[in-house]
Amino acid sequence: MDDQAFEAALAELAADRKQGASELARRCLEALSGSARYAPATDSDELLALLKHRCGALSGSRPSMAPIRNLLVEWRLDLDSRTGLSLQALREAAGNAADDLIRRSGQAVEKTVAHAVEHIGDGKRIITHSLSSTVLGVFEQLKDRKVQAVITESRPLNEGYLLASRLAEWEIPTELITEAQMGLAVAQADLALVGADSLLPDGSLVNKAGTYLLALAAWEGGVPFWVCCESFKRIRERGWEVELEEMDATELSAPYLPETRIRNVYFDITPARLISLWIDEKGIYQSLDDFEP
Amino acid sequence: MDDQAFEAALAELAADRKQGASELARRCLEALSGSARYAPATDSDELLALLKHRCGALSGSRPSMAPIRNLLVEWRLDLDSRTGLSLQALREAAGNAADDLIRRSGQAVEKTVAHAVEHIGDGKRIITHSLSSTVLGVFEQLKDRKVQAVITESRPLNEGYLLASRLAEWEIPTELITEAQMGLAVAQADLALVGADSLLPDGSLVNKAGTYLLALAAWEGGVPFWVCCESFKRIRERGWEVELEEMDATELSAPYLPETRIRNVYFDITPARLISLWIDEKGIYQSLDDFEP
Repeated sequence: MDDQAFEAALAELAADRKQGASELARRCLEALSGSARYAPATDSDELLALLKHRCGALSGSRPSMAPIRNLLVEWRLDLDSRTGLSLQALREAAGNAADDLIRRSGQAVEKTVAHAVEHIGDGKRIITHSLSSTVLGVFEQLKDRKVQAVITESRPLNEGYLLASRLAEWEIPTELITEAQMGLAVAQADLALVGADSLLPDGSLVNKAGTYLLALAAWEGGVPFWVCCESFKRIRERGWEVELEEMDATELSAPYLPETRIRNVYFDITPARLISLWIDEKGIYQSLDDFEP
Repeated sequence: MDDQAFEAALAELAADRKQGASELARRCLEALSGSARYAPATDSDELLALLKHRCGALSGSRPSMAPIRNLLVEWRLDLDSRTGLSLQALREAAGNAADDLIRRSGQAVEKTVAHAVEHIGDGKRIITHSLSSTVLGVFEQLKDRKVQAVITESRPLNEGYLLASRLAEWEIPTELITEAQMGLAVAQADLALVGADSLLPDGSLVNKAGTYLLALAAWEGGVPFWVCCESFKRIRERGWEVELEEMDATELSAPYLPETRIRNVYFDITPARLISLWIDEKGIYQSLDDFEP
């Protein structure tokens, strides 16, 4: 992976609005695996400098997404421990470390899905917002268990349409609503289930904008609000200042409106007290006390 | 106004998604005024029967909108009191009664706006949802008083764009957001201000879907949530079963999605306990006790 290919991958990653934090984190690791194995370098010091630079660039690409940061920190710590290796040995060690993290991340998601599925059971009407690969995995596993889905358009880019087409493949009865209808729809559901972009130290949830509104309405309606995400999504540093990414205003496809500033903040924060259950690859957590650390 | 013209007006009214309940109520009265004066009839009994029939048809056309019902009930009561009139005298009396209600409805909105403006004061950042002519009137009056607006797209038909263009005429600095961003945006506002389609006997608000979510987030963020609407919007019968109109699914402009039912419920209900202040043509009400009857 030469500089040009890497820059292209980095730009694509920063612009991606369709994939969730877990997939994008694995794409970062794939870029590092490719860089480790194939980036031009004449000795191990040169390769090391290049990999550290690329790791830093990827790390900062999506500030609202904890797994990118967490998995890259882990990879970087491993890299820092590899001293005195030949160029070829460093290529292999750094590449294998990235591949190993990709595998572990995927397994963590799978186990998270399995815990969620076991805990949800049969015949539930589940409302979700945005498109989470973990929630998608849950629906896939529940497809023969009388599950029903209520999903949102998920403005501005309508990833709800993509979710609807996946659910249709599994013949899951689905209702698609505007975000504005979430208050009405959640009251008629058994469960609100969402993924996460990041989980803050106190259990608060960073996820697609609108998630907070869904959680408020679930709380008011007495409907459980569950978050399922692997522990790579947790930010553990207290006092972490989460950045809520704002994307290009043109994504809203609004007509030209003078005097008007179009806002496109992608994420919001749902406070822990609105969350009834957290699910990760290790199990389920009904309170913050169980959940820590 | 012959049968064909009336049926066309009725169909247009039922399909209208852009205008609020007050304007549509006045359009109903205009249709009745026109019918009273110009509908074909050979004697006053024939005209009376025709007007009652048209009044009933208009009354049922928009079940979520109280002012249509209230103003038409008032007009119908007046009509029932007109006995023994000649055809010409009945035409004039029924036409004048409709015109009088149109004037009173317009005045009530104007006074409601004036009370709201007085109570809001200068330099406020106001978030609203959907397009209310009363809220629009408030912004117009506040245009030289350092007001800022935060407005929503208001899916599915994006009446927020129309609102943005009106605010732009008055050079009011405006931010346009997706409904999904309401949770973030309301926390940075001084006030959430909405109109109403109907107000239920306990002070709960029937308004464009998404209003309930805005009210929840305002409550959570400690931001006042005010409803301004003239008293013609109040439903006074306890136990009234409000019907939340569902419109055509095609309005969402979604692609073809197999297995997916697209929902387009236009209104939701905001409980009175989330409302900090009600404003009508008579004044302001800080609690339900003041507000009744």
